[in-house]
Formats: sequence, C-alpha cells, structure tokens
Amino acid sequence: MDVMNGYVLGIDLGGTKIAAAISDMQGNIIFKDTIETESDKGKEVVFQNIVSLVNEVIKNSGKNLVEIVSIGIGSPGPLNIEEGLILNAANLPFKEFPLVNRLKEIFKKDIYLENDANVAALAEYKFGAGKGTKNMIYITVSTGVGAGAIIDGKLYNGSTFNSLEIGHTIVQPIDGALCGCGSYGCLEAYASGTAIARIAREGLEAGAESSLKDYEKVTSYEVYLESEKGDEIANEILDYAFTYLGVGVGNAIVTFDPEAIVIGGGVSKMGDRMFNKVRETVNERYLKVLVENCKIVPAELKEDTGVVGAIALAILRCEEK
Amino acid sequence: MDVMNGYVLGIDLGGTKIAAAISDMQGNIIFKDTIETESDKGKEVVFQNIVSLVNEVIKNSGKNLVEIVSIGIGSPGPLNIEEGLILNAANLPFKEFPLVNRLKEIFKKDIYLENDANVAALAEYKFGAGKGTKNMIYITVSTGVGAGAIIDGKLYNGSTFNSLEIGHTIVQPIDGALCGCGSYGCLEAYASGTAIARIAREGLEAGAESSLKDYEKVTSYEVYLESEKGDEIANEILDYAFTYLGVGVGNAIVTFDPEAIVIGGGVSKMGDRMFNKVRETVNERYLKVLVENCKIVPAELKEDTGVVGAIALAILRCEEK
Repeated sequence: MDVMNGYVLGIDLGGTKIAAAISDMQGNIIFKDTIETESDKGKEVVFQNIVSLVNEVIKNSGKNLVEIVSIGIGSPGPLNIEEGLILNAANLPFKEFPLVNRLKEIFKKDIYLENDANVAALAEYKFGAGKGTKNMIYITVSTGVGAGAIIDGKLYNGSTFNSLEIGHTIVQPIDGALCGCGSYGCLEAYASGTAIARIAREGLEAGAESSLKDYEKVTSYEVYLESEKGDEIANEILDYAFTYLGVGVGNAIVTFDPEAIVIGGGVSKMGDRMFNKVRETVNERYLKVLVENCKIVPAELKEDTGVVGAIALAILRCEEK
Repeated sequence: MDVMNGYVLGIDLGGTKIAAAISDMQGNIIFKDTIETESDKGKEVVFQNIVSLVNEVIKNSGKNLVEIVSIGIGSPGPLNIEEGLILNAANLPFKEFPLVNRLKEIFKKDIYLENDANVAALAEYKFGAGKGTKNMIYITVSTGVGAGAIIDGKLYNGSTFNSLEIGHTIVQPIDGALCGCGSYGCLEAYASGTAIARIAREGLEAGAESSLKDYEKVTSYEVYLESEKGDEIANEILDYAFTYLGVGVGNAIVTFDPEAIVIGGGVSKMGDRMFNKVRETVNERYLKVLVENCKIVPAELKEDTGVVGAIALAILRCEEK
C-alpha cells in the first residue's frame, strides 16, 4: 500500500473527554467521535476507553485497521516523548504510564505522542493560521500560558522536551507576582486567565469601584464582559494583563524571528480586545525592523485543535520518514 | 579533489582590524594574520585590504587558491545574508555593500557571510564550550547583549535573519530603563557593560558612598575591580545587573531547552563574579525540571572567536552540502 494513500488516526486525550478522528493524508476528517474519559475510574478504565474509541472510530469510518498508517496522540504533560510515557498529567490517572507501548501492543502501528501545546502548534501550522510558514510560534493563553514552536518546518522539542515554556519566562524580575510554578514574575502570573481573575480579585479586595461583583469567584471572562460594558477597572485590568502578554509575544518575536505568532486558548476568545493591545504593545515597544515581518494572528482551529493536531502529528511524522 | 581534504578560509571583519586564517577541514589553523581595517579610508580601501589579506594568508600558508574549498566571513550587522550584503555596519564604511559577490568575482569560491554573534556561536559549537551539543545558545555580553542559536546542529537565522536579539527582549515592562534601541526595559539596558557603567554613574550621581571615582567615565570593568576590593556599592551594582542577566539566561533556557548556554564577550571576563550570580538566579528562580539539564559555561575561544567562527561557518556549510 502506498502510505500517502493511507489514513491516520488522531487522539486528543483530555481530563474529561477523549476525542479521536480518522483522516486521509491531506487532513480531511472522515469520521470523528468523542467519549467521556472517566478519569475517576483509574488508568486501566481510561486506557480501555481509548482503545474502544479507536476501534469504534475505525469501524464507523468504513476503513480497516490495515489502512491506518500511524496514530498521533496529544496529551497534557509532562510527558516522556522518546519513551512514549505520560509522566504525570493533571486530571488524568496516569503516572509514568507507557501509553505508546500499550497502544502499540494492540494496534501494531507507529504511534507518536506530544503535549497538547505542541499538538495545537502542529494543527495551526499544517491546517490553520500558520499554513505556509516555515517558522511559527503557537501560544495558548488559558488557565496558563503555553507554547509550541515550528522551526524550519519541524516541531521543536528542545533537548529534554521542555522547550517553549514561555509562560515561565520571567518578565518582572523585581517584586514579581507569585506564579503557580512557585517562582515570581513569570509571564503566566500576569497574562493568563488565572492571572486576570487574580488581578481583578486583588483590585476589588482593595476597594476598587467596579461593576464586577462577587470578587471571590470573578473570572477572566467576566472581566472581559464588564470591560465591554464600559467598566473602567475591568478595562484597566485587561490593558495591564495584555501589555504583559504583548511583552511575552514581542520577546518571542525578537527571539525566534518567526513569520507568525498564532494565539489560541480560552482567553484569546476575547478577540480584538486582546489582539489589539498585544499588537499595540509589540509595535510600540520593539525595534520596528525586528517585529514588522511577523504577523500576530488568532488560531483558526477551534474545538477540534487537539484532534486535528494529533492528525497533523501523525501525517508529519509519516512525511519525515 | 576530495572536499574534506581541502582547506577553508575564515575572515573576521572588524572596525579596526581584519583577521584571516586558513585551516584544514578539522579546524586546525595553518596560518593566520591580521591587518588594519582603515575604515576611515572608505569602502574600496577596506575591500582591497580584505583581498590583500586573503592573498597573503593563502601565500604564507603554503597552499594554493585551488585547494581552498570555501570562505566564511563574520561581520558586524545588520546584514542581508541571502544576498551577501553588509547593510549598515557600525565602524565600517559599508552601506548595502555586496561583499560576498565582490569577493566571489575575485576568488571564484563559495563564500558565506554571518553576523559576528552567529559566527561566535558557531565557533563555540564546533570548537569550544558547546562541542558535542545539538542545541546551544551563545550569548555575548559586552557593550550590548547579543546571541546566536544552534538548533538541531544548525545555525538558526529566523525568517528575516533577525533571530536571537535577546538583548532586546523586555525584562522590565513597567518603569524600565532606556535602551540604546529607543525602547525601555530591554535586557541590554540592565545587563550589558554599558548598562553596568550607567547604573554606576546614576548611583554615584545620586550620592552613593563608593570607592568608585570619576563617575562620568566609570566603566563596567572598574565596577568589577572595586567590587573585588570590597566596595559595597560596586558589589550591589553587579548583583543587580547579573540578576537581570540571569533572567535573560533563564528565559533563554525555558524557551529553547538547550544543552548549554555559552557566555562570552568582554563582561564575561569577570568570570565567577558573573557566572555565580547568573547560575544562582537561574537555580533559584526557575522550575528545576526546566533548567537542571542545561549547563551555563564560559566561552572557551578568546581573541580568535571571530576568525575561528568564520572557519566553522565555512566548514559547516561544506558539510551541509
């Protein structure tokens, strides 16, 4: 069989849901389905759920296992990519779990594992906003700030698969805010959804006059909604957070000199409110010659990023062979 | 002739001196010489000086032009690498000067041009402190802060040959110090030799009690000397600057996940005084798992970095062919 006439399978492993899809080598999805992860039932149940989903997706696609060339998997990290292990993923019952080898035993295929930020980077590079670029950085802004890099058309992993942890670059060395990692002044402590909520909470606790209520439960999305309605405090909070995000983006541009920075993740749903401030910060604060050739654009793939990225991973690894 | 039995020529173009050397394909230098650049005499004199030096080095090496496989050149930037132009180098009389094509007309060889930070990165990667790594970042700390990256064994240039401008990553977004680039809060405005001298000057102007004298002319090296003699203000200035440098280094590590950060440049001659503070900052302020596998080490090649890097460039480009 000619590999390029075959099919690949992508799996997006999440704490609440697992998605899987079959596509041709051009990325056209033939069949896709989703099941509950059932993380609370332990690792063997979750593993069997993955296996059942794969079998069911193959069956419903009208294809046969023999036509599947390879399988790509996106998973929360940390992972050991080389050995195909999930080391310790939040919201999943896996500790040092040899997912790749366990699946290989059953399906006898080439199976590739990557963390979800890298898989999303691949999705945007191959099928989304980064299509046609050679060097591209994908940044996800949600509860945290993560990233993945395509360098010279290939996913960059670094020497220990820990590259692009730009959420933990320090952008405020002195009197920096506490980050979830235990350090101070990290980008993630200023520009993530969690940070926006924290900054709002701190402002409200200090007595700021705002239409934001119930400050113990305030979310970044509420800050956005109130800002859109004209609340000044909410507006200032977003300007503050997105100035830091702009610095994170600008720092990535002058470091990588990429053709595109693609931004996804929950906070990016604020759209222009976020992108305008980020672009303004980059344009005002960096040497023009260093940043003018890089576009800063929203991710194009929405809910399907994970599974499309897993498909992109499987296809790209075949092409590299 | 077997290329790998041939020789390469490296040229280090500087504002006051030009160095050139011939080496075999293993980097063993056979003959090396240096002449005055004579920048004040204009571009054609400088160009003829380069040509004369090349001819003289070939002659004195006992080799023939026919044995030279390729020529590598390191030059101050900005450059247009693809077209082999020196766009506008400080201290050189070249504006949009087609150095590569002009030399090709004369010597009929493959000629490669790179900026001096990249050439130094190649020197350390091929023959110095980065030998044996796959991913390595070279950082030069002198009047400015520059860098070059080896990714997957290859020099990384970015999409417009402007990558690794980490001196202009912003590490102090709010109330940042003015940088030479016109922006505020850049790494270079805190961690370069120029910045150390400025911080000292500002402190002395504000009336700090210190053994540092003549604050209008204070240099970073004097700050170091006084610090070594026990001056507290000088010591604080270095701690402050090297904490920022540590953040620049830490940010590069969590971004690239390299095997080594190699630091050269004039300020790195402060040795342990600099490296200890940089390593301490990285160890204390970044997640251990993200930084523990990367060594932070001094550059090994001293005065010869430029010409050895130009040789490394010529050899690596041959190997890539």
